[in-house]
Amino acid sequence: MRFYENKAEDVVIAYIGGGSRGWAWGLMSDLASQDVLCGTVRLYDIDKEAAEANRIIGNKAGEVEGAKSQWRYETADTIGEALTGADFVVLSILPGTFDEMESDVHLPEKYGIYQSVGDTAGPGGMVRAARTIPMYVGFAEAIREYCPEAWVINYTNPMTLCVQTLYEIFPQINAFGCCHEVFSTQELLAAMLEDLYGIKDVKRDEIYVNVQGINHFTWLNRASYRMADLMPLYRQFVGKYYESGYIKDESDHWMNSTFACAQRVKFDLFRRYGEIAAAGDRHLAEFMNGKMYLKDPETVRSWMFGLTTVAWRKEDLQKRLERSRKLVSGEEEFKLRRTGEEGVHMMQALAGYRTLVSNVNLPNYGQLEGIRRGAVVETNAVFRSGRVTPLYAGSMNNEVQAMVARHSANHKTTLEAVLKKDFDRLLTAFLNDPLVTVSYDDAKELLRQMLVNTKKYLPGWDL
Amino acid sequence: MRFYENKAEDVVIAYIGGGSRGWAWGLMSDLASQDVLCGTVRLYDIDKEAAEANRIIGNKAGEVEGAKSQWRYETADTIGEALTGADFVVLSILPGTFDEMESDVHLPEKYGIYQSVGDTAGPGGMVRAARTIPMYVGFAEAIREYCPEAWVINYTNPMTLCVQTLYEIFPQINAFGCCHEVFSTQELLAAMLEDLYGIKDVKRDEIYVNVQGINHFTWLNRASYRMADLMPLYRQFVGKYYESGYIKDESDHWMNSTFACAQRVKFDLFRRYGEIAAAGDRHLAEFMNGKMYLKDPETVRSWMFGLTTVAWRKEDLQKRLERSRKLVSGEEEFKLRRTGEEGVHMMQALAGYRTLVSNVNLPNYGQLEGIRRGAVVETNAVFRSGRVTPLYAGSMNNEVQAMVARHSANHKTTLEAVLKKDFDRLLTAFLNDPLVTVSYDDAKELLRQMLVNTKKYLPGWDL
Amino acid sequence: MRFYENKAEDVVIAYIGGGSRGWAWGLMSDLASQDVLCGTVRLYDIDKEAAEANRIIGNKAGEVEGAKSQWRYETADTIGEALTGADFVVLSILPGTFDEMESDVHLPEKYGIYQSVGDTAGPGGMVRAARTIPMYVGFAEAIREYCPEAWVINYTNPMTLCVQTLYEIFPQINAFGCCHEVFSTQELLAAMLEDLYGIKDVKRDEIYVNVQGINHFTWLNRASYRMADLMPLYRQFVGKYYESGYIKDESDHWMNSTFACAQRVKFDLFRRYGEIAAAGDRHLAEFMNGKMYLKDPETVRSWMFGLTTVAWRKEDLQKRLERSRKLVSGEEEFKLRRTGEEGVHMMQALAGYRTLVSNVNLPNYGQLEGIRRGAVVETNAVFRSGRVTPLYAGSMNNEVQAMVARHSANHKTTLEAVLKKDFDRLLTAFLNDPLVTVSYDDAKELLRQMLVNTKKYLPGWDL
Amino acid sequence: MRFYENKAEDVVIAYIGGGSRGWAWGLMSDLASQDVLCGTVRLYDIDKEAAEANRIIGNKAGEVEGAKSQWRYETADTIGEALTGADFVVLSILPGTFDEMESDVHLPEKYGIYQSVGDTAGPGGMVRAARTIPMYVGFAEAIREYCPEAWVINYTNPMTLCVQTLYEIFPQINAFGCCHEVFSTQELLAAMLEDLYGIKDVKRDEIYVNVQGINHFTWLNRASYRMADLMPLYRQFVGKYYESGYIKDESDHWMNSTFACAQRVKFDLFRRYGEIAAAGDRHLAEFMNGKMYLKDPETVRSWMFGLTTVAWRKEDLQKRLERSRKLVSGEEEFKLRRTGEEGVHMMQALAGYRTLVSNVNLPNYGQLEGIRRGAVVETNAVFRSGRVTPLYAGSMNNEVQAMVARHSANHKTTLEAVLKKDFDRLLTAFLNDPLVTVSYDDAKELLRQMLVNTKKYLPGWDL
Repeated sequence: MRFYENKAEDVVIAYIGGGSRGWAWGLMSDLASQDVLCGTVRLYDIDKEAAEANRIIGNKAGEVEGAKSQWRYETADTIGEALTGADFVVLSILPGTFDEMESDVHLPEKYGIYQSVGDTAGPGGMVRAARTIPMYVGFAEAIREYCPEAWVINYTNPMTLCVQTLYEIFPQINAFGCCHEVFSTQELLAAMLEDLYGIKDVKRDEIYVNVQGINHFTWLNRASYRMADLMPLYRQFVGKYYESGYIKDESDHWMNSTFACAQRVKFDLFRRYGEIAAAGDRHLAEFMNGKMYLKDPETVRSWMFGLTTVAWRKEDLQKRLERSRKLVSGEEEFKLRRTGEEGVHMMQALAGYRTLVSNVNLPNYGQLEGIRRGAVVETNAVFRSGRVTPLYAGSMNNEVQAMVARHSANHKTTLEAVLKKDFDRLLTAFLNDPLVTVSYDDAKELLRQMLVNTKKYLPGWDL
Repeated sequence: MRFYENKAEDVVIAYIGGGSRGWAWGLMSDLASQDVLCGTVRLYDIDKEAAEANRIIGNKAGEVEGAKSQWRYETADTIGEALTGADFVVLSILPGTFDEMESDVHLPEKYGIYQSVGDTAGPGGMVRAARTIPMYVGFAEAIREYCPEAWVINYTNPMTLCVQTLYEIFPQINAFGCCHEVFSTQELLAAMLEDLYGIKDVKRDEIYVNVQGINHFTWLNRASYRMADLMPLYRQFVGKYYESGYIKDESDHWMNSTFACAQRVKFDLFRRYGEIAAAGDRHLAEFMNGKMYLKDPETVRSWMFGLTTVAWRKEDLQKRLERSRKLVSGEEEFKLRRTGEEGVHMMQALAGYRTLVSNVNLPNYGQLEGIRRGAVVETNAVFRSGRVTPLYAGSMNNEVQAMVARHSANHKTTLEAVLKKDFDRLLTAFLNDPLVTVSYDDAKELLRQMLVNTKKYLPGWDL
Repeated sequence: MRFYENKAEDVVIAYIGGGSRGWAWGLMSDLASQDVLCGTVRLYDIDKEAAEANRIIGNKAGEVEGAKSQWRYETADTIGEALTGADFVVLSILPGTFDEMESDVHLPEKYGIYQSVGDTAGPGGMVRAARTIPMYVGFAEAIREYCPEAWVINYTNPMTLCVQTLYEIFPQINAFGCCHEVFSTQELLAAMLEDLYGIKDVKRDEIYVNVQGINHFTWLNRASYRMADLMPLYRQFVGKYYESGYIKDESDHWMNSTFACAQRVKFDLFRRYGEIAAAGDRHLAEFMNGKMYLKDPETVRSWMFGLTTVAWRKEDLQKRLERSRKLVSGEEEFKLRRTGEEGVHMMQALAGYRTLVSNVNLPNYGQLEGIRRGAVVETNAVFRSGRVTPLYAGSMNNEVQAMVARHSANHKTTLEAVLKKDFDRLLTAFLNDPLVTVSYDDAKELLRQMLVNTKKYLPGWDL
Repeated sequence: MRFYENKAEDVVIAYIGGGSRGWAWGLMSDLASQDVLCGTVRLYDIDKEAAEANRIIGNKAGEVEGAKSQWRYETADTIGEALTGADFVVLSILPGTFDEMESDVHLPEKYGIYQSVGDTAGPGGMVRAARTIPMYVGFAEAIREYCPEAWVINYTNPMTLCVQTLYEIFPQINAFGCCHEVFSTQELLAAMLEDLYGIKDVKRDEIYVNVQGINHFTWLNRASYRMADLMPLYRQFVGKYYESGYIKDESDHWMNSTFACAQRVKFDLFRRYGEIAAAGDRHLAEFMNGKMYLKDPETVRSWMFGLTTVAWRKEDLQKRLERSRKLVSGEEEFKLRRTGEEGVHMMQALAGYRTLVSNVNLPNYGQLEGIRRGAVVETNAVFRSGRVTPLYAGSMNNEVQAMVARHSANHKTTLEAVLKKDFDRLLTAFLNDPLVTVSYDDAKELLRQMLVNTKKYLPGWDL
């Protein structure tokens, strides 16, 4: 990277999982839409063909209308080739395939355990972690070898355990995890201002929030706009929409979209705990007792969110593959569409060209009270000139802390178990997950089956 | 109290709940069997007749064979009369009657929630707490008024919340909670030494243990005898008896005694967590997920412990009433039988005549890592000359800490909710209890019914 | 305050000490030079005439060339009148007069104790605190009564104890302390980049630093520009200028200016402790052992900084009084001159119109390891929408922590002693100050004389 | 070691420094006077002849009147031979000779720095540490190799750094440091009870104290006898004897004994800080600012304690050598004289035959608030069955904590500096010592000379 007064050139971004159909195109848009940074993106993917398609698409992105910078897209044959000399590393992979994910999400249904996402907490999240951790051990080792000073941005789920693995293997790594779930809650608060007071066009980042917790189970104990405290307003808002749910517009209706929700879980959690849960309802539900929001499909419907099926994901993938083909062939023109993600802004800030405050997943140095030091937590942080410094987030309320601590303890046990390939230890965590409300024997059998279904990614395990 | 070289006289003990049929007789034995302390015991009970019976029995205790000191037993008409000038206060009451306890323990069975004791954790423990806390508010206020310097020893369950209430209301109180459950585990370890190595007659207090946790959910991360580490021996012992259970002798068989167990829960917890759970299996089971050891009566039988029914308690009470009558009338002679409890030793130590190390329930000043400061926890402490000083107990293992923290958070919420008579807040804790694996609506209805059943002890609640 | 999309109007700033000749004019410039906020400044001063002069000057400030907003300046007869309805409160006073300061700074010289500033640490700082704390008790009480929600910005020294007093008296206050000493160190680092590498025009706030410590004794354990770590560069810079001192240009020569220095103390501290002390050498020297940099005037000269005499301050005041007269009469035209201070930016950020990261004095909630919770410390913080949230600053190095902790302990003792008017307790802190290298009897006598010299501001003391 | 019901046999004690003339004889007495433990003492000393003399004396100790056990004394040619198979290791050496100590204690007098002991804090303590730490590195390595499970009891000064070095090199070591200074303070409190109230014959260990701090700078924030709080009594006692000093009997007069004192420093510290400093005045004075109690010999006399000269020590050694000769030859008969030290009791307790609560030097696991985790601190601990468990000692008062923390920080720096043989780093600690009230240049020169004077024990240093 070479630094000039208002911009940096020759920036090298290594993108692991660079064959993505969808997420990659967003990154291409965000990069092309700014001109503070410019350079090369090295795409690395175990599906080389996919990376090659994105190379072609990416190299078009700098030429379309509105583009401000022209990045060079290359593919790399090995991870070492991708990483050598990288300034930034983006980690965004699908660990395994949707076949494994199908087992993660749907096999537990045989035991009455329903999951709305299945990639973070619950049986699905845990088995996905078992599959992902060995991959991240490899990434950490490669980064230590090829670009130990690079800034590593993780987007893969399970977020907490991906970041935790990186730090476990290479404690000096400059890594953090990035997630947009809190943004949606900021947007909900902006919508609330319009709904209650007619204040229009409030931007997400004008809503200042104090973030506490772990990824997908983050909580806001303070929210403000201008100098106004939004907590009493939110209580009023919850009162208004608790029963009906809040649906901003029909395009966003939870019955039409597998990712949408009517915020009823969020409202219910506010009633119980007095703080704002700041992730989508589909994620939040998975951190609570299995009998609460995910007891069965009827219960889920009553809470007005959807169970994202893997069948849907498979179907959606087909559409994205088709779109990729068209973008490569030129049948469809690539258009810039800002994603609203912070990743590129974070890179600009780390390069020293702006100051950014955003929520981020980092080891707990002391920024979050009540959670073990070293555990990866999500709080706000300041990004600036080669540093990511967490804000002091304080204490969570009593019950929220106990719930977060339980999942955080499970993360620790899961990581230890997977690194040691220790089934019994993993079972300890599995049994401690609040979605696992089945008997010991059932839990043991379920975990074993789930691991067997993903055993191709579990080298060295005795199953 | 007047101090002499080897003994103290004119000691005043106020015994709240002094009408007890059973426990009181043990205290009488322990007091009469020693001569370091001597003085007066003031019996106070809402059942005055019961206190009067114990006055008669107590005054006989100093005259029987083997007695070393003659204590004077008096009854008090008011709690103020009992407490004024007291050096020690013993709190040992039944909060409510067995009718309320019947609802605590058995009503949840309608929702598939089985409880083996129902006085500490779980729905029963929580509702018992709701009933007990207001009584302890009164005790704390009375102690502050009548004997603020006295040392207060609590034996009532739920232990943690009784002690927590005392400190909440009167932070300068000199109070602690006393429980013998850890002693039984020390005895089990002594029995193990004989079973594995033929080492006979090891005394309980020769087994040195490090105690961590909360009452009835205490854990030992270290245990030693002479200079030997007992942890590897315990692993061997668990291996030998995991399937069959360990029954020392038939008189102690779990099928014959409502309080006995075959240690299978304890052994199972050791396999899972690598540390020694140090309470009876009936208690331990209630702190774990409801589907583990208490799923249904068959499951309980397979783990070889019993569900203590309130019907049994009622029957047992009849026997004890009958025995009380005989002891009063002289039909049965009072005999000294040391209880093995530490209460009287603690008083001797506080008076400065010995040094005692024992497990005790105290606010967490810092002696137990990972649990909120101020939360009542159980660790070892040194008793000596007007001071109870906890030993530094260190950190629990990861999962154990998360489990203990969850219950400890529930205690905090429960206390706040009961002090404010706030149903919704109490429901938060109720839903967070691991035995409560039912739906939100069912949980709400169950809690409401249970509270209604004990409403006579819940003045000011709107139910 | 009324909020619009890009600006707020009707902002009310209460300025306590508003008769200042000098500092007030800077604030007027900063306010007039921006248009995000607009409204009224209420000037309150015990010297009403001075406030009146500033009212006249202030009302001209919005009309001069370059002014972007027109603020209304008013005087207030009482502090209550000034504070009622205030959105922001600025506290910037001279506690007592230069006569008292003369005793603070120069009386200790009789005992061989030299002070370069005498307003923060050392005998002078402590006695100034004794005089200032009662005033700040009054401010805190008035703010609690008249504008409890207002944001209070303190500029008065001794900074730490002023802010600590505010929080001691009114714990819910929204107050922080603001100091520009760190800025100068950022500027020094920018100058270093030009000196070593010819990188020109780096702006102060492009140098990102991690701030740790207490006001005027702040330390940087990290400093970066773009993505470069500046610590190794600073080591090189120290090596280059350790002997000669670093003087940017002659206008800034330490022999010509009572406030300038050649950074030799700072360089020496870096050699000793490996971290960058971030305040002027005159301040830093006062926190170290009295025999190090302030042994006698020769020693001070050898370290190339000056002892700021109170005679100089008195003379300078005469010049500023003269200038005030001319500005009021119109003989001299008021010109906008941005101060480089952050105060007005902080107000903009608190009002929700920008995000600002700057160093600030706040109680230690947990942002600084190794220093008592609640002690006022200086670290970075994020200013945004009604919130000042400290960044997690981590641990200082071992010796630095011990030194900071010693002064921080002294602050606590000083505050307690002054609130209780307890000479013996204050003497404890006095003797514990590292500049006080005299005998116990001498120290006692010196402290007594110094307090007597300021007794007019010590109502209720028995001296 | 073989364990029987009431005693252990074949106990092996390795005694490093076993050639001692004086201290060794006390240990022999203590061992022979009890019969709970019996076995072999292996004497190792770099002065083999001295060890041989003690072998002869030791083997007589079991045969004299009053002896209850007969230990076998052997000499070892190598440290490995001494340690192999040891159950306990006693470390009690003189690091270097009195020639080096002469420089430690008296050279600083040239710079106006007087030291009353010179073996713990101050210039003398620091340089003694520089000489001792490499020896303790060797001990730690040898213990790791030859007897990693053994319990290691250190008596050598500087106590804190000896114990810290052992843990630094071999973190799993079972080591602690033992010091009797607190005992003397307990005896002073017992004497106070007689002096004020005529209560006679109170034994030292009937005075229960809470110990906080570091070796030779320990503080008691609580002291009790029976149930009485001794703090208000001590205030009264200080009032009575502040001016005159307290001298129990003339045999103990400070003018007659180089080790005695009139407690005036202790009383003065109580007046200043409100807590009981619990070490001899000669030690306490060395932790305070050099101008307080040690300004010059006149000041020392006014505080009624003595400066222990090394000339005295050399003379005393001659007497002890002569006595050794006589004990070996039989000219003088060995007599049992209990030392009052706890060492042998600690061994009994560790072997599982008793429970002991005593003050001890251990790494700070969390037992002492406000001091860095891992720093060696002195608090009470329970000794029992292979475990030394510290009591939770809580927080010190504000100023005491700052003073202790400063010395504790110095320990850390000193250890790091000595392990790295880094003069500049050691100078940092030296300058931070409160006795070092001289200028930087003088301090640097003094430290260099002192190190040169002990360079024979500083292999690898570049001086």
